[in-house]
Amino acid sequence: MPAFMPVGTQGTVKGLTAAQLAASGAQLVLANAYHLALRPGAEVVQQLGGLHHFMGWNGPLLTDSGGFQIFSLAHRISVNEQAAEFRSHIDGKRWQLSPERAIDIQRQLGCDIAMVLDHVVALPNDREVLADASRRTVRWAARSLQAARGDQQALFGIVQGGLDETLRAECAAALAQLDFDGYAIGGLSVGETPAQMLTAIEFTVPHLPGPRPRYLMGVGRPQDLLEAIARGIDLFDCVMPTRNGRNALAFTDAGTLRLRNQRHQLDPRPLDETCPCAACRHSRGYLRHLFLAGEMLGPILLSLHNLTYYQRLMRDARAAIAAGSFVEFKNHKLVGWQAAQTPEPCGGSPAAC
Amino acid sequence: MPAFMPVGTQGTVKGLTAAQLAASGAQLVLANAYHLALRPGAEVVQQLGGLHHFMGWNGPLLTDSGGFQIFSLAHRISVNEQAAEFRSHIDGKRWQLSPERAIDIQRQLGCDIAMVLDHVVALPNDREVLADASRRTVRWAARSLQAARGDQQALFGIVQGGLDETLRAECAAALAQLDFDGYAIGGLSVGETPAQMLTAIEFTVPHLPGPRPRYLMGVGRPQDLLEAIARGIDLFDCVMPTRNGRNALAFTDAGTLRLRNQRHQLDPRPLDETCPCAACRHSRGYLRHLFLAGEMLGPILLSLHNLTYYQRLMRDARAAIAAGSFVEFKNHKLVGWQAAQTPEPCGGSPAAC
Repeated sequence: MPAFMPVGTQGTVKGLTAAQLAASGAQLVLANAYHLALRPGAEVVQQLGGLHHFMGWNGPLLTDSGGFQIFSLAHRISVNEQAAEFRSHIDGKRWQLSPERAIDIQRQLGCDIAMVLDHVVALPNDREVLADASRRTVRWAARSLQAARGDQQALFGIVQGGLDETLRAECAAALAQLDFDGYAIGGLSVGETPAQMLTAIEFTVPHLPGPRPRYLMGVGRPQDLLEAIARGIDLFDCVMPTRNGRNALAFTDAGTLRLRNQRHQLDPRPLDETCPCAACRHSRGYLRHLFLAGEMLGPILLSLHNLTYYQRLMRDARAAIAAGSFVEFKNHKLVGWQAAQTPEPCGGSPAAC
Repeated sequence: MPAFMPVGTQGTVKGLTAAQLAASGAQLVLANAYHLALRPGAEVVQQLGGLHHFMGWNGPLLTDSGGFQIFSLAHRISVNEQAAEFRSHIDGKRWQLSPERAIDIQRQLGCDIAMVLDHVVALPNDREVLADASRRTVRWAARSLQAARGDQQALFGIVQGGLDETLRAECAAALAQLDFDGYAIGGLSVGETPAQMLTAIEFTVPHLPGPRPRYLMGVGRPQDLLEAIARGIDLFDCVMPTRNGRNALAFTDAGTLRLRNQRHQLDPRPLDETCPCAACRHSRGYLRHLFLAGEMLGPILLSLHNLTYYQRLMRDARAAIAAGSFVEFKNHKLVGWQAAQTPEPCGGSPAAC
């Protein structure tokens, strides 16, 4: 059954208190081991009671390992068989992150679901580079499982292999042998077209063990979520609702609204008559005023609204699946969204959310 | 009985939803007619249902007239007997604000308590300049009363006169003749010492009609509030709890805490064990992390905490007054605060909160 994780990169979903996060309908929240290891440090979080207590979030937490952040944020990266070496994007400090250290960090953070360290490379790329990275990701996944043996945390493997069907299938099949608690598809939503992304999902999913959760990392627009659910994906994370919310873009069933637009100036309607979020207690005119006046409450309210929108979409998708009417549900939503322009998908995992 | 108004200059107390504002214990909220007239425009607020509906605040609202903001924010100001003329600090547009127009704007906003337009000048200043401004303030107050005749809104006069006892007494006595619903002391907390401010309160209050509320504009630190209450003040507003909160400074009974400080890194304690606010569900170590990581949640949580602190202080002050133990209460609080460094008073009314 599908679920969407809000992104709390640095131990906070930007602009929301833990109570507001819960009120949005979130069940599972994502945080980032790379960011938290660099600042304030995994030991600091551990000494302050672990990540749940630190953030004030009582529900389940998944932490990404840092593979994507090393690729997208760190400086002077080199990857050898033992570990990834890089310099911190914050202070230039030299770091070495091995699969085993990534497990240690996530154990210190105390998340419920840990992710293996994967080797992420740019797309498009030479097949040889892609093959090398996806095969290293499998070897690192085996070391991660070994390192995590006996842990209470669940551990998910990550399929790499770019847009290459053979590499994806090979990587997925090899990971499936390793008996992870769940399987993620990584390295997508990094600039490929939505059609290419869906194709990559289609040739990866059949190689993953049926009963285990399948997690599509860093995706995406509402339509991407429904198309991916139709192809067997269960779990998502993306900065899109919060990052776009901070930039005055709201998601609705009638497509996206850009709240800075002059046409909202005197509009007394809420973003969505049926939405229970705090933003929808105000007029569009008020929300526009907040953005034009540079008030923090604009980004806060639109982040709340967009996260609530995503959670209600997932709730309705689950209900449609249970009722056997998911395809109808999806097509109905797609028609509504196509009525207006929607933004480009955000880039991959929560690199700089 | 004393009360503190959070400052919602542009129709939002920075970083807080209406529900969070209510949860802080706020009863009365201040907004600013100058800011709202310039952006989005009083007509826009009126068309969107008035300021209460616009902000989503169901409790009482007081709007400041703009006298202080013209003085502190606007460009190319000139004041003649008819009106203040200036250019907007936002877009340079030419404005003319008369006492009558200030009443019109506040009527359009639909506040519960309107303030007269006053003529504010810098301190220190020539006695002649101060006398001219304070006497014009009285003449404008009479015109404001006339313009507001028949309105449902309450109207408060504002005493000016700098630090000059004769001018303050003259201004207060003249306004007292005019039968306002309440009386404000303006033009303080603009750079004078706390002792000078208290002296100015002492020689103004006796000239104000006993049964009407007395409002000290733009003040101040917790100790300033208690000293002013001891001298007969009922009502306060100040950006200090929110502006300082955004800058990582928290108010507590043991003085102020600067949350960026290294000493909080591993501190598992909340800011205040007895405080019910959302910030106090987290450790000081987490709050420090939020500020160092540049996360919006830091300013949000500290604004919430500081406003909650001010409201609890007022609640306890009211209880102490009712119990006949206010002096004891005040002295006990002052001893606690003196244990640590406290910040300088913020400048006057919510100029740039």
